[in-house]
Amino acid sequence: MPTPVSVIAWGKAGVRLLDQTRLPGEEVWIEIRTVEEMVEAIQQLRVRGAPLIGVAAAMGLAQAARDRAARGALSREWIETVARRLEDARPTAVDVKWALARVVRAAVTAYEKKGSGDVVLQALRRAAQAVWDDEVAMSRAIGEAGAALIPAGATVLTHCNTGALATGGLGTAHATISVAHDQGKLIDVVATETRPLRQGARLTAWELAKAGIPVRVIADSAAASLMAAGEIDLVVTGADRIAANGDAANKIGTYALAVLARAHAIPFYVAAPRSTFDRSLPSGDAIPIEQRSPEELETARGAGVSNPAFDVTPAELIEAIVTDRGVLSPPYGEAIAKLLA
Amino acid sequence: MPTPVSVIAWGKAGVRLLDQTRLPGEEVWIEIRTVEEMVEAIQQLRVRGAPLIGVAAAMGLAQAARDRAARGALSREWIETVARRLEDARPTAVDVKWALARVVRAAVTAYEKKGSGDVVLQALRRAAQAVWDDEVAMSRAIGEAGAALIPAGATVLTHCNTGALATGGLGTAHATISVAHDQGKLIDVVATETRPLRQGARLTAWELAKAGIPVRVIADSAAASLMAAGEIDLVVTGADRIAANGDAANKIGTYALAVLARAHAIPFYVAAPRSTFDRSLPSGDAIPIEQRSPEELETARGAGVSNPAFDVTPAELIEAIVTDRGVLSPPYGEAIAKLLA
Repeated sequence: MPTPVSVIAWGKAGVRLLDQTRLPGEEVWIEIRTVEEMVEAIQQLRVRGAPLIGVAAAMGLAQAARDRAARGALSREWIETVARRLEDARPTAVDVKWALARVVRAAVTAYEKKGSGDVVLQALRRAAQAVWDDEVAMSRAIGEAGAALIPAGATVLTHCNTGALATGGLGTAHATISVAHDQGKLIDVVATETRPLRQGARLTAWELAKAGIPVRVIADSAAASLMAAGEIDLVVTGADRIAANGDAANKIGTYALAVLARAHAIPFYVAAPRSTFDRSLPSGDAIPIEQRSPEELETARGAGVSNPAFDVTPAELIEAIVTDRGVLSPPYGEAIAKLLA
Repeated sequence: MPTPVSVIAWGKAGVRLLDQTRLPGEEVWIEIRTVEEMVEAIQQLRVRGAPLIGVAAAMGLAQAARDRAARGALSREWIETVARRLEDARPTAVDVKWALARVVRAAVTAYEKKGSGDVVLQALRRAAQAVWDDEVAMSRAIGEAGAALIPAGATVLTHCNTGALATGGLGTAHATISVAHDQGKLIDVVATETRPLRQGARLTAWELAKAGIPVRVIADSAAASLMAAGEIDLVVTGADRIAANGDAANKIGTYALAVLARAHAIPFYVAAPRSTFDRSLPSGDAIPIEQRSPEELETARGAGVSNPAFDVTPAELIEAIVTDRGVLSPPYGEAIAKLLA
């Protein structure tokens, strides 16, 4: 089983993070020692990807609590207040909320058992490590399930960034590629640039190259012609939210790739953990599409910008959904209900 | 009939050009006085688009000849040498070759009739103006023919840059939009960013806004979701080369838009003058696809880049081809043979 590229670590008194704003040009590690620094790192995208932010925030809370305890002022109220501040640094990332809730719960349990300060600190650290370990284990499960779908020698097209830089583990789509490579399948990857923020060109390409997996970057608009030339064997992407019927919201451009893959008879796969599924949404129509800042697409004065962050790929274009509990095949309604039961 | 946005003009002793490298931020006019300056302007993309480069090079030759004559050294050989230097500034642009050949031919005819220096200079200037006038007339004809395909109130999606900034006239796809707007059809335009060089966001958006035509810029990858949302009524693009069967090579991303348009039952049109058709190519398979510099897609060390400049849209995805001699409908083989006869 491959190891995720290293992007986060416990520091002596803080959390060590690979500063993602410096990639791909430079690999600069920063040590985050205070809550303020962690909020800044999240808001400035030094650490990004909801699952990785969750891991970082949980670890940051555990480390900040140590410093607070050393000054004799650690309390349950302080922990809860700091958790809320970290959560508010990126309020749309639901993984961050869950990760912090888990760490806070561990501390509260320790307090309720009348544990000493040291016991509380240990509980915080263990819970934060567990958030990370679970992320790593879950992405390994996705990787193992998904790798079975990737034939030896395949050229895999992927979109946006779904590996360690986004999750702290092997990730989702990235995990399937990573495990297939590790199995000696001699695959290679085509990574879309992923406009407007260029996560594919900046982050996915860096991460794959770092792991020794052959990768080529293309403009998003070039995917179709590579498909027509027979250069792409399959497409695999992550997902941000999956509705009860299998419709999947993901980074803008994913839907285009799914339509193009179908037109060229290329299988299109989605990889996501169980936490991505949302049974409260009957279909993709119920998924709200956030518009991002128009400044991300610099243009002329007097011209407008339409900059949707996500699009929705209908279930009928998805050949299979890879989860940490195996591969789902269509029709997805029943399979998803069973998965979440 | 609408007037093209002003991007080129005769100067007192040179050629005035809108410096396209400064767009969309600034509108800076430069005056090109020497052949060296024109070569630099072409190579630095201050002037771009094969038809517009042709107009600029022809005008530049005419103006440089005046200066040469003032120093008493104008000759047929000098004119031919300078034409070759201008042609070599952008050897792949076939329009430039034709434009310069036309101007040189006018000078040679004047020399053969034993015309005075002034007669030669007049012939050069008239021929250069005729290159420009023909470009303007041809694009008007395309605009008139194509506007008939654009319903009132339509939202038109276009790709790359096809207006005055590329041709000196109303252009190709841009002309159809421009004339439809001028006819009071209250259309609006969605312009793709057009990675990697961003001609859509930088140039098309500027040109449309300048002409008072409502325009929104999107990431190339967002076109599919706008189509799925019913926001796009038709797609129109230019073409670089069209084979005898109607297969059309154009800026990378055009083929993706054609596939996506078909999947959403949206008509996809190509607009191009007769000079774009190449009867020597039986189909798109015969069109070589140039790879552009990998630096245009900045990525991580160790990652490769695939950066095709063009793709080929098969004729069966094209609803109609708009030319300066009317609209061609499929099957195109016969229509194209008749057009070029």
